[in-house]
Amino acid sequence: MHDLVIRNVRPMGGEATSVSIRDGRIAGYGSTPDNAAQALDGAGAILIPGLVEAHTHMDKTLLGMGWYHNEVGPALIDKIENERKQRRILGIDPARQSARQAVLAASLGVTHIRTHVDVDTEVGTTGIEGVLETRERYRDIVDIELVAFPQSGMLIRPGTVELMEKALQLGAQVVGGLDPAAIDRDPKNHLDVVFGLADRYGVPIDIHLHEPAELGAFSMELIIERTRALGLQGRVTISHAFCLGMADHDYVAALIDALANARIHILTTAPASRPAPAVKRLVEAGIVVAAGSDGVRDTWGPYNNPDMLERAVLVGLRNNLRRDDEVALALDTCTYGGARMMGLNDYGLEPGCKADIVLLDGETLAEAIVSRRPRKMVVKGGKVICRDGATSITAP
Amino acid sequence: MHDLVIRNVRPMGGEATSVSIRDGRIAGYGSTPDNAAQALDGAGAILIPGLVEAHTHMDKTLLGMGWYHNEVGPALIDKIENERKQRRILGIDPARQSARQAVLAASLGVTHIRTHVDVDTEVGTTGIEGVLETRERYRDIVDIELVAFPQSGMLIRPGTVELMEKALQLGAQVVGGLDPAAIDRDPKNHLDVVFGLADRYGVPIDIHLHEPAELGAFSMELIIERTRALGLQGRVTISHAFCLGMADHDYVAALIDALANARIHILTTAPASRPAPAVKRLVEAGIVVAAGSDGVRDTWGPYNNPDMLERAVLVGLRNNLRRDDEVALALDTCTYGGARMMGLNDYGLEPGCKADIVLLDGETLAEAIVSRRPRKMVVKGGKVICRDGATSITAP
Repeated sequence: MHDLVIRNVRPMGGEATSVSIRDGRIAGYGSTPDNAAQALDGAGAILIPGLVEAHTHMDKTLLGMGWYHNEVGPALIDKIENERKQRRILGIDPARQSARQAVLAASLGVTHIRTHVDVDTEVGTTGIEGVLETRERYRDIVDIELVAFPQSGMLIRPGTVELMEKALQLGAQVVGGLDPAAIDRDPKNHLDVVFGLADRYGVPIDIHLHEPAELGAFSMELIIERTRALGLQGRVTISHAFCLGMADHDYVAALIDALANARIHILTTAPASRPAPAVKRLVEAGIVVAAGSDGVRDTWGPYNNPDMLERAVLVGLRNNLRRDDEVALALDTCTYGGARMMGLNDYGLEPGCKADIVLLDGETLAEAIVSRRPRKMVVKGGKVICRDGATSITAP
Repeated sequence: MHDLVIRNVRPMGGEATSVSIRDGRIAGYGSTPDNAAQALDGAGAILIPGLVEAHTHMDKTLLGMGWYHNEVGPALIDKIENERKQRRILGIDPARQSARQAVLAASLGVTHIRTHVDVDTEVGTTGIEGVLETRERYRDIVDIELVAFPQSGMLIRPGTVELMEKALQLGAQVVGGLDPAAIDRDPKNHLDVVFGLADRYGVPIDIHLHEPAELGAFSMELIIERTRALGLQGRVTISHAFCLGMADHDYVAALIDALANARIHILTTAPASRPAPAVKRLVEAGIVVAAGSDGVRDTWGPYNNPDMLERAVLVGLRNNLRRDDEVALALDTCTYGGARMMGLNDYGLEPGCKADIVLLDGETLAEAIVSRRPRKMVVKGGKVICRDGATSITAP
């Protein structure tokens, strides 16, 4: 007895078939069993695995809070300090805000999220606690992984390391880091603390590295050294990694080799205004490349939204991926790339994988991606949670 | 007697008022006249002038033709040659295709379009003739300006200059040019021909300049010299102008000064994968900056669509325009910037301007831009042509 059968779907835009789901997993394809509890018509839609949002900040989106009139200064530190101030003024509640983003993202076919949650001496771990609440409340529609993230710096703000530790004890699953030189002013010790926490708590690492060019490359070398020394190959992600967008081809080639060798993953938001990692070059070197929206409608900027098909388009535009096989690669950063980065088990469309799947209306896979229509169907853990862009699940 | 009054609209997101329209023009704001032939409720929507698509290729969009599986090579010349081939294989009809884009663009609030139409020794002027047909047929919903565009090169393909001249005689309103060095291999003579045609036919100029860095800068200098020599200040546009994205600040500063002095306009598509003109820097130097979608779903690439609010977002992302005033600047490239580039008379929201206006649902101007909802209302020449994203006007 199958729980759900969806007839007439096209896996990755290929030949039409039926997909059967049992006990929350993909049971198989092909002949339609006639003993399914629920049978739906896919109407020729394209079947893809759930979208993976591999880098966002759910604790501080302003979704549903009224438009924030942005007058912030240009520097990174301006944005960080303004945000801490606005958090008080606007009353940005991490549980409520992360819930809003969770429901919106799920309705767009996002089945897995890695979210970086601020930990600092002003909010302490209240952000972590709020997002943990959301993680539990919405566990049936989206899997949320929390990174304890020292957004305001760690060593420059005494007391932060202890809070990071508390965050990990509370349930954060990843230890974060941030610009060890440019923000924390002490790359060696910043990274020693981050890797030390990872080692002690047995958690993976995700470090935001905005540092440009040669400075970023130096921090990257320190990360690579520690990854190898502690045997953390496959457990470390570098987010942003703008330094890989340097013009010096040979310098970047050496970094890419070293990253591939240490099995370090790269997360990109595909920023149009900054040097950025070249997705295709990294993938060809065997590096896992994932994509994320970064902050969604927050005090940092107005443009981002949680639609990972839109992110795939932005990855494609940033990396000049025009051919159909290249557009599919752009999507891959928003599906399999994110899943591999997060170490998701049983992710994908193979029989036995968890039934976290999305149906897209569209002529071909590339057409469906660039058109970004409302999702025809979203299935999470074998349950239909969204149809034609609409979900009955609500957020506060 | 007014023809149309729309109550409760917010010009550029400001205070709510009524806008009155008479004889296809904006008559005024404020007190609602009670003798209007048609009175509509704007429901607090944001009023902006019509969107201006200042650079596209309507003759060769593949809209409505079935998905084109793109396997094209990476070089510019690969794309040019593939397109000439596909035009025959796919049967891309310029009249039909430009009509499809015209109707779609109008439904998105685009009231003015500058389109570059291929002129070459294979198609001759059939593209021009097809788009002229569309220009006439859809003149009540969108103003279309044609550029005679030697996409495949001009001097390297003998006979093209004569066809360019024929295109201008048929009704093309602008003379185009293309990479005088990189494609046509003869910058001096290419530009002498282009400027010669402009001088003889009294038409403005729009040159596609993809040439990178110092090479592009040299061609740009030649364009500036000719603009000044022929007294064509204010009549010349350089599209793309990737060379302005060079890293050398002083070199670019000298070019910007010379462009401003010659009153040459810059058109950007805000490409994420190429060096590109810095919009804010150019605007601050007094240069008119317009924006365009470039080719929409054609053999060149799959991503572009004719939504100029999406283009404003891409301009914002490319130029790191995050503050609300900066988001408004991004929109400006898709409204007033394009209008000034095209020399549109009576464009804008002032009384006396043509009633080419768009209503956007949204909380603030920035919010409406980044949300890119279906347009609440589009008014062209004083007539409502689209409501809530839907229009009764059809394309073949």
